[in-house]
Amino acid sequence: MHSTQTNINQILNITHPIIQAPMAGGPCTLELVCSVSNCGGLGSIGAGYLTAEKLRVEIQAVKNQTTNPFSVNVFIPVDPIPELEMRNVILDRLRMCMEELDIEHLDFTFDELPSLDEQLDVVIEEGVPVLSFTFGLLSVDQIIKLKKANIKIVGTATCLKEAQAIEDLGCDAVVLQGFEAGGHRGSFLDTNFPGIGLSSLLAQTKDQIKIPIIVAGGIMNGYQIAGVLNMGASGAQMGTAFLTTKESGASPEWKSAILNSTDTSTVLTKAFSGKLARGIRNKFSAVFEDCEKYLCPYPIMNEVTKPIRMKAKQLGIPDYQSLWAGQGSGLARELSVVELMEILVDEMKK
Amino acid sequence: MHSTQTNINQILNITHPIIQAPMAGGPCTLELVCSVSNCGGLGSIGAGYLTAEKLRVEIQAVKNQTTNPFSVNVFIPVDPIPELEMRNVILDRLRMCMEELDIEHLDFTFDELPSLDEQLDVVIEEGVPVLSFTFGLLSVDQIIKLKKANIKIVGTATCLKEAQAIEDLGCDAVVLQGFEAGGHRGSFLDTNFPGIGLSSLLAQTKDQIKIPIIVAGGIMNGYQIAGVLNMGASGAQMGTAFLTTKESGASPEWKSAILNSTDTSTVLTKAFSGKLARGIRNKFSAVFEDCEKYLCPYPIMNEVTKPIRMKAKQLGIPDYQSLWAGQGSGLARELSVVELMEILVDEMKK
Repeated sequence: MHSTQTNINQILNITHPIIQAPMAGGPCTLELVCSVSNCGGLGSIGAGYLTAEKLRVEIQAVKNQTTNPFSVNVFIPVDPIPELEMRNVILDRLRMCMEELDIEHLDFTFDELPSLDEQLDVVIEEGVPVLSFTFGLLSVDQIIKLKKANIKIVGTATCLKEAQAIEDLGCDAVVLQGFEAGGHRGSFLDTNFPGIGLSSLLAQTKDQIKIPIIVAGGIMNGYQIAGVLNMGASGAQMGTAFLTTKESGASPEWKSAILNSTDTSTVLTKAFSGKLARGIRNKFSAVFEDCEKYLCPYPIMNEVTKPIRMKAKQLGIPDYQSLWAGQGSGLARELSVVELMEILVDEMKK
Repeated sequence: MHSTQTNINQILNITHPIIQAPMAGGPCTLELVCSVSNCGGLGSIGAGYLTAEKLRVEIQAVKNQTTNPFSVNVFIPVDPIPELEMRNVILDRLRMCMEELDIEHLDFTFDELPSLDEQLDVVIEEGVPVLSFTFGLLSVDQIIKLKKANIKIVGTATCLKEAQAIEDLGCDAVVLQGFEAGGHRGSFLDTNFPGIGLSSLLAQTKDQIKIPIIVAGGIMNGYQIAGVLNMGASGAQMGTAFLTTKESGASPEWKSAILNSTDTSTVLTKAFSGKLARGIRNKFSAVFEDCEKYLCPYPIMNEVTKPIRMKAKQLGIPDYQSLWAGQGSGLARELSVVELMEILVDEMKK
């Protein structure tokens, strides 16, 4: 029996080795983040799409509601942003979706993406305890600035090589994302790689790096947390388990899709954003299944499909929303964060 | 801590909850099967491609070398066998491979596939202790016959529904095959489904069925075996870990590809057989990557590519062999079966 979980609790200054996954774009409400942190886990702001100004407001709101540690997650930007080159096969299918949702035209002028350096400045100025990043590596300069500010740094990896790159950069811990994980794949060395099953990934990584490993992917209950700690992880990051809590900002259709799902309900798709992500299979993911290679790359496709996803949310139609969920979705429970955290901690001990 | 491993040891009458995966078509030599059984695990004859006559010879040879239990694995046949309809895009690429291997022409007259009922008759007549099956379900009549002969029956599942079907049929145990597993996917409800990561699959199955669960997929060492037992499995089935033993019949190129692999080396491909299978990525899997949907279905494609695979093996060229391996391949060790089994049992206790 390995017993490394004290590691991550000490490093992140948390009570339970449970990290709420930073889900960008809505699900991580103030209530969700603060409740997790107040329960002794690590609440996380998914700041990937937030400008520095909005991020500052969010951080200050969190600090008003918890004195416990929390984290901010940022995206490593794509550079240069690819051109918008929309193939007819994709346009035709987008038009089909637009018709069904009564959308007149897609606005192809995009919101400016947030500046990573401005986000990091806010994180430093506000004294955020933990900064995590996804989709690549921070620069050495950025790491130095964060370290000077005493901020703990956590990178995201989907294979051993990525985990080693994160360790080499001087990060304090790594989130190891298994094939099972919901939402976007964090892969950055090969963004088309579908992923490695969590138990194989952990077994092949744990003896090759020294920094603590937080595992993510399909973990839904405390028995599983105890299981991964036993297999050498220091902590568990959970997204889907928190998506169906009362505090989550997931749409009612999204929550319901997860609560009604089984072990075979999810699919890896590029349809929504141009980048591989796992969610409950629906009409939108099915429509683009046979032409994924013609989709625009991320983040262009993500911007293109935004009006469709937004309108579907307004109308309460699950078929055109991104219903991100991991392969453990069949175990989802509808609880408050306090109830879920209590049960998780209880199950861990059994 | 769950402690159900005694279950499977009692049911299968073995000492260690370690099942050597039945790998059809060569790797499971007599020496491999018997060594595993003699070490207290369950050696397995991969009889999928063996006629009843050849199977009988094999079983008798095993019985001559071990008094311990062993298993025979059979394939549920495809019925009716699909037509041979070879698209030009596939023919062109096959020709390319043939040229590189100096093969004049592919023989499109196929060996007759073994009769499942005849195989089962031999299994019963020879008093084989354990019969496992893959790619579907035995019939109720077949189950009754095996049960009358006191043979333990084990089915293969890749999702909860398949596991439930196997339990409903009256099987004694189920092999739950995770996404990580090497070789052919055992899926029979949706043969295109890529699979569920082992830890999520186990977590979602263990409380829904009562028969013991043997898990398969990426398990390479005793720490992992202890880990899956702790998460509710009763036993572990391992293929890749045995492929690189001295007793294995895998070609030297195959063994070497596994021993030199990393966590990202494998790919799920239909190229070799028309059915999804995981192996070390090579030229053959890459050549068909963009046209997998035009391949003939299993077992036709398997017969079509056989001369290519055989010639590549003769010539010692790994690029055109099926180098089946699971996602744990980076942990492979070059040992004898006795050494491997000792280390596994030792690691399990740590």
